[in-house]
Formats: sequence, structure tokens, C-alpha cells
Amino acid sequence: MIPDALTQSQFDTVYNLLSLVIAAQLFTALFLVLALQRVLPRYRQAIIIAAVVCGIAAYHYFRIFDSFKEAFVTDAVGGRGLYTQADGASFNEGYRYVDWLLTVPLLLVELIAVLALARKIQTALLWKLVPAATLMILLGYPGEVSSTDGTRILWGVLSTIPFLYILYVLFVELTKSLDRQPERVRVLISRLRLLLLASWIVYPLAYALPLLGISGADAWVLKQGGYSIADIAAKALYALIIYRIAKLKSYADDPAFAAIEDHHDHASAGEQASQRKQRTERG
Amino acid sequence: MIPDALTQSQFDTVYNLLSLVIAAQLFTALFLVLALQRVLPRYRQAIIIAAVVCGIAAYHYFRIFDSFKEAFVTDAVGGRGLYTQADGASFNEGYRYVDWLLTVPLLLVELIAVLALARKIQTALLWKLVPAATLMILLGYPGEVSSTDGTRILWGVLSTIPFLYILYVLFVELTKSLDRQPERVRVLISRLRLLLLASWIVYPLAYALPLLGISGADAWVLKQGGYSIADIAAKALYALIIYRIAKLKSYADDPAFAAIEDHHDHASAGEQASQRKQRTERG
Repeated sequence: MIPDALTQSQFDTVYNLLSLVIAAQLFTALFLVLALQRVLPRYRQAIIIAAVVCGIAAYHYFRIFDSFKEAFVTDAVGGRGLYTQADGASFNEGYRYVDWLLTVPLLLVELIAVLALARKIQTALLWKLVPAATLMILLGYPGEVSSTDGTRILWGVLSTIPFLYILYVLFVELTKSLDRQPERVRVLISRLRLLLLASWIVYPLAYALPLLGISGADAWVLKQGGYSIADIAAKALYALIIYRIAKLKSYADDPAFAAIEDHHDHASAGEQASQRKQRTERG
Repeated sequence: MIPDALTQSQFDTVYNLLSLVIAAQLFTALFLVLALQRVLPRYRQAIIIAAVVCGIAAYHYFRIFDSFKEAFVTDAVGGRGLYTQADGASFNEGYRYVDWLLTVPLLLVELIAVLALARKIQTALLWKLVPAATLMILLGYPGEVSSTDGTRILWGVLSTIPFLYILYVLFVELTKSLDRQPERVRVLISRLRLLLLASWIVYPLAYALPLLGISGADAWVLKQGGYSIADIAAKALYALIIYRIAKLKSYADDPAFAAIEDHHDHASAGEQASQRKQRTERG
């Protein structure tokens, strides 16, 4: 799977992409920590989990980045050269599975937590989504590390079953519970599910590359790029949408909080309303 | 592009400048985090983004600094010598583009967020500025990594189109929305735009150096110095002006907050006013 050699521009592309993912995850986590007080306490669990997920991803990308730098060496004197696999070092793709094992169930917990559904519905959804997500990652791993097509297909198919079940729960079961959410929140949740689908679909595609006979350095670089962009979308961008939902719901729940926090025209309107309310109470 | 050798003083200059940028960005970020509570909640989004931008820049300068240290080695025993390019290491200029891809759109978001414009105007401005900024950076990259003049000119010209569009939006469209801002804030925003223009103009100049036939170690050191100073001005100094605007606007919005936060004469005046107000309410 791992190519024997990379050109300078292939090496630089992977190198810069891995560094981009570190920066995106690390500073999304920092942003979420700093912005935590800007949503009502009832939505902070979702933001905390989102920050932890981005932090875990940043940690694993530091590892992946170091593993990549150690795996390829160049003999070229100065400037632009050819990178070959270093003796005794190999690029550790397993970090990705360890990362997903921790973060993928948490991504689903984030989504359910920010909705603030009735406790019974929330518990029921989590008991479906979390085990399915864990199973999906665990079943993918034996196929990923295998070098025979049969094994890869078998575990790939097994892993797809919980994946489809998760999609069913998110797009069918969850929809039934959204009727009490504000209209703008429902729109955001629809976008969030599509982002999740679009980014998660990259992983089985990358998994299938060797089965399709697509290999070589270019395919490998494409795969690393696909994983990198998908991880930014599925964790950092996803977290920012979760934050947006938490803010909208906070403002909808508590106009006085919106008046303090928000700076837009409707905030001034909220402020006026709250001032009017205070005046009425005093009078 | 990268010189084969640097003298001790050239090496030291770049080394110290890169370290200066790390210190400036890291501690501006820290300052902003510590000072976050000193502006009203409605302006904290801008300060949080400013802190994140400086943090991202600090991260990339750590990387650039390490890349620079690895790229040049000296044979001199102790003290002052000649630095030559290390075998198998190359100075990675790509970090700068990864940094800009994340930070340049966010710098424009900071500016718009701190103005607290009506939501419709804000959304319209962001939908123009953020895609233009992203496009500007993406279009510059293929030219930067190319070694042929024609390719460099082509992508340089393409990248200049969104740059000019951003200037149009900032200097023409934005001006129309500033009539409700306090006078002192308008002055600061004018300065901020000039700082942005003055610092951003350094990047196309550095990009054009190879086209002008300016090369060699001195030109390379000058370019690194230009990037370093421009990055401090465009991110750290810029963030401090954003913070100043957020404070002025907080005080203008809420005299009671100004009385608690500010220690200058006009704060005492605010304090007196708020005391007068309290007396009136009591009486």
C-alpha cells in the first residue's frame, strides 16, 4: 500500500496537508474552549465533547505527521529530490483507526447532545448510535491491515452494516424527533447530516482503493489528501456547525441571553424587549 | 529560490526574525485570551477569532523555524561560519500558504465581527470577503511552487483579481456601513484598513522577487524578513487594534461597563453619570 518512493512535490503535498489538519483541529478545539461560555450551560456538554474530539484528532495527526516524516528519507543534496522509504521505519496507518475508535462515537454523541431532546429519546438514540459506530470502526480494522482482497472485502462488507444502520437512525429515526426544534436549527441539522454523509463516505472509498487496483504513489497521495480533508470536514467544520446550533438554540431559549451575547439588530430588539420587561416589572 | 549558502549573520538574522514572530504571535494570542472578559460579550467573537489567528500563526512559525534549522548546517567548529543546505532537508515555504489559507479569511471575519453591523449586511460582506480571500491564497500557491516565470506570472495575475476585489469591498462597500459607528471607531477602522493594505502588499512583492531577477542569499533573507514583519503587522498588531475597537465600542454601548473597566477620566465621567442615574432611579 505504501509507495516505495515519493517525488518532492508528492512529499510536500502530504506534509503540508497533514500539518493543515493539525492546525485546523488544534485551533478549532481552542476556539471551542474559548467560546464555551457563549452558549447556555445546557448546550455546553456538546461543545466540550466537540473540543475533545478535535483535540484527540490533533494528537493523532501529530503522531501521523511524525510517522510520515520518519518513513521517508531523501538522499538528494539540497533542494528538490526523491523520497524513499527509510530503513526500519514504516508509515503507521493504524493511528487513524485508533483515532476513529475514540472520535467517531463521540461525534454522534455531540450531535445528539446539542439537540437537547427529551431524556428518554436521547438515551434510546445513543444506545443505537454509539455501539454501531464502535462496531463499524472495529470491523474495518482487520480489512485495512490485510493484504488479501478476500479478507478486505469480507471485513469491509461487515463494517458497512453498522454504517448503514447509523444512516438509518440519523436520517429516519432522528427526523421524527426534530419537530420541536426551531426552523433554523432544523435546516442546520439537515446540513450537518449531509456533511457527515459526504465526509464519512470518503473513508470506505479510500478503503476500497486497493480493491479497485488503484495503487502507486499518486493514488496514495490522493488517499492521504482525502482522509485529511474528510477529517477536517467531519470534525472541525462539523464542530463549528454544532457550535452554531448551540448558539441559535441558546438565543431561542433565552432572549435576555441573546440580547447580551448577540450584537446584531435583533439583539438590540431583544435588549429593548428585556428593558421594557424590566421597566414593566419595576412600574 | 533557496540559497545554497548563508553567512553567519544572514543565518542569525533569519533565525532571530523567525523567533521574534513566534514570540509576537504566541503572546498576542495569550494577551487576547486573558483580556477576553474586558470587552462586552457581543464583541468576544472577534477577539476569540483574533486569538485563534495568532495561535495558528505561532504554530506555523514553530514549524517554519524548525524547517529552517534543519535546512541549513554549518561545518564551522564553534562560533561564526558558513551555513550550507543540509543533505536531505529542504526549507518548506509551503507552511506559509497553509497558514494563510486558514488565517487570511479569518482576519476578514475578525474585522467584520467587531463592527457589529446589522446581520444582513454582515452576512453579505462575509459571503464576499471569505471566498475571495480563500481563492486569493489557493490561486497563489501553484505560482509560488513553480520554477518557470510564465506559470508564476499567470497564477500571480489570477490571484491578484480576488485581492483587488477584497480591497474594493473593504474600502468602498464597507465604508457605506460605517455611518452608525462612533467617530473614534471610524478613525481606527481607517487605520486598520491601511495597516491591512500596507502589510498585505508585502506578499505580492515577495512573490514577484524571482520575476524581477532578484535572487541570491541577500534577497532571500530580505524576503524572509519581509514576510516576518508583514505577518506581525497583519496578525498581531492588527489583532491589538481590533481589541481596541472592541473596547471603545463596549464603553460606548454600556457606560456602566466603562465605569468598571476603564481607569481614565472619561470613565469617571461615566461613573458619575451612572451614579446620577442610580440616584435618580432611587429618588
